[in-house]
Amino acid sequence: MRLQLALDIADLGLARAALEKVVDLVDIVEIGTTLIIKEGIRAVAEIKKAHPTLPVLADLKIMDAGEIEAQIAFEAGADMVTVLGVAHDFTIEAVVKRAQAYNGEVMVDLLAVKDVGKRAEEVNRLGCDYVCVHTGVDAQAAGLNPLQGLETVSMVLDGGRIAVAGGIVPQTLPHVMRFRPGIVIVGGSITRDPDPRRVALAIKQQMTNTGYG
Amino acid sequence: MRLQLALDIADLGLARAALEKVVDLVDIVEIGTTLIIKEGIRAVAEIKKAHPTLPVLADLKIMDAGEIEAQIAFEAGADMVTVLGVAHDFTIEAVVKRAQAYNGEVMVDLLAVKDVGKRAEEVNRLGCDYVCVHTGVDAQAAGLNPLQGLETVSMVLDGGRIAVAGGIVPQTLPHVMRFRPGIVIVGGSITRDPDPRRVALAIKQQMTNTGYG
Repeated sequence: MRLQLALDIADLGLARAALEKVVDLVDIVEIGTTLIIKEGIRAVAEIKKAHPTLPVLADLKIMDAGEIEAQIAFEAGADMVTVLGVAHDFTIEAVVKRAQAYNGEVMVDLLAVKDVGKRAEEVNRLGCDYVCVHTGVDAQAAGLNPLQGLETVSMVLDGGRIAVAGGIVPQTLPHVMRFRPGIVIVGGSITRDPDPRRVALAIKQQMTNTGYG
Repeated sequence: MRLQLALDIADLGLARAALEKVVDLVDIVEIGTTLIIKEGIRAVAEIKKAHPTLPVLADLKIMDAGEIEAQIAFEAGADMVTVLGVAHDFTIEAVVKRAQAYNGEVMVDLLAVKDVGKRAEEVNRLGCDYVCVHTGVDAQAAGLNPLQGLETVSMVLDGGRIAVAGGIVPQTLPHVMRFRPGIVIVGGSITRDPDPRRVALAIKQQMTNTGYG
């Protein structure tokens, strides 16, 4: 089980500073969509340069132009890129194809997918590496969380292929971990805490104490 | 009927040069998703600075974090921003709310929406300014075009509120114009032509010769 830190801070300097505080506890660093919009793909390049051995995910949420957008991410040094589950199959296929050329990985973000179980099976057949059960920030504000979707997807995919994101905090982590997802994505609850290290440690300790690996 | 030039060139210098050649023929300039990923939101700011009276659309294809992402676009000088029709309603509402605060406009991109007529009605009720019937580049490569969707949406929305995009060239423009869309979006067929001005003129003349305005 790996901890992915989502840098959803729209300033590269602040994002880098937030990462530095917990980098030894993090298995994957996600360059958030908002940060990429603000700073461009150099946000990926600069963080990869600063931490060359840390896997970097470029959260592009690709919806079209799969080949060129995935290529931009991998050329900048990303190890993984996201494509939306609501995108057309041929866009997801184009991203998968481009990822293979760069020896990179693809995470399909199920944001706003209605039938997550069915779509998880479909995108799995398209060759993606991970499927992300994701309750976005706007959905969180509306009171939603990823647990039900996680339960549904874990009935059709091996947990190791599942990532989960959406307002996860140390207190809610046990509910998520029941489904043994391969990747747990945490953003604001670490980066916006006055003591980010304390939160990251609380999460990391739970993840390693289970024996799930 | 307005001509929107889509700058889907992943280099700001080349995109600016492409715009300069036809800027007097263009009613709206679109800063494409790929260009924003590559260069960040400064692509919007720099083109707005160079052409302060030309309406600028930031094609963010917002899928989540509607308020913050729309704000980044409007702060950079965008006059209009796109949000995906496949996004949750509360994301579209957040973008509309933020646009109103900046006196900006919102275009909902129907890319990969299954029932475009129903969704066009729904997002219209959410307060968007335009609905874009859009066949993306990956869908074009699969042989699709926006005509059927355009026909469906024009049965539920006034043409003036409809934008259309997807591989439109001077030869196919008459089929599109039958539905009197308010905005016709053209990208590569202008920007990638050896004589972009000739293509833009051919399109603009058809648009103005109809008397549709």
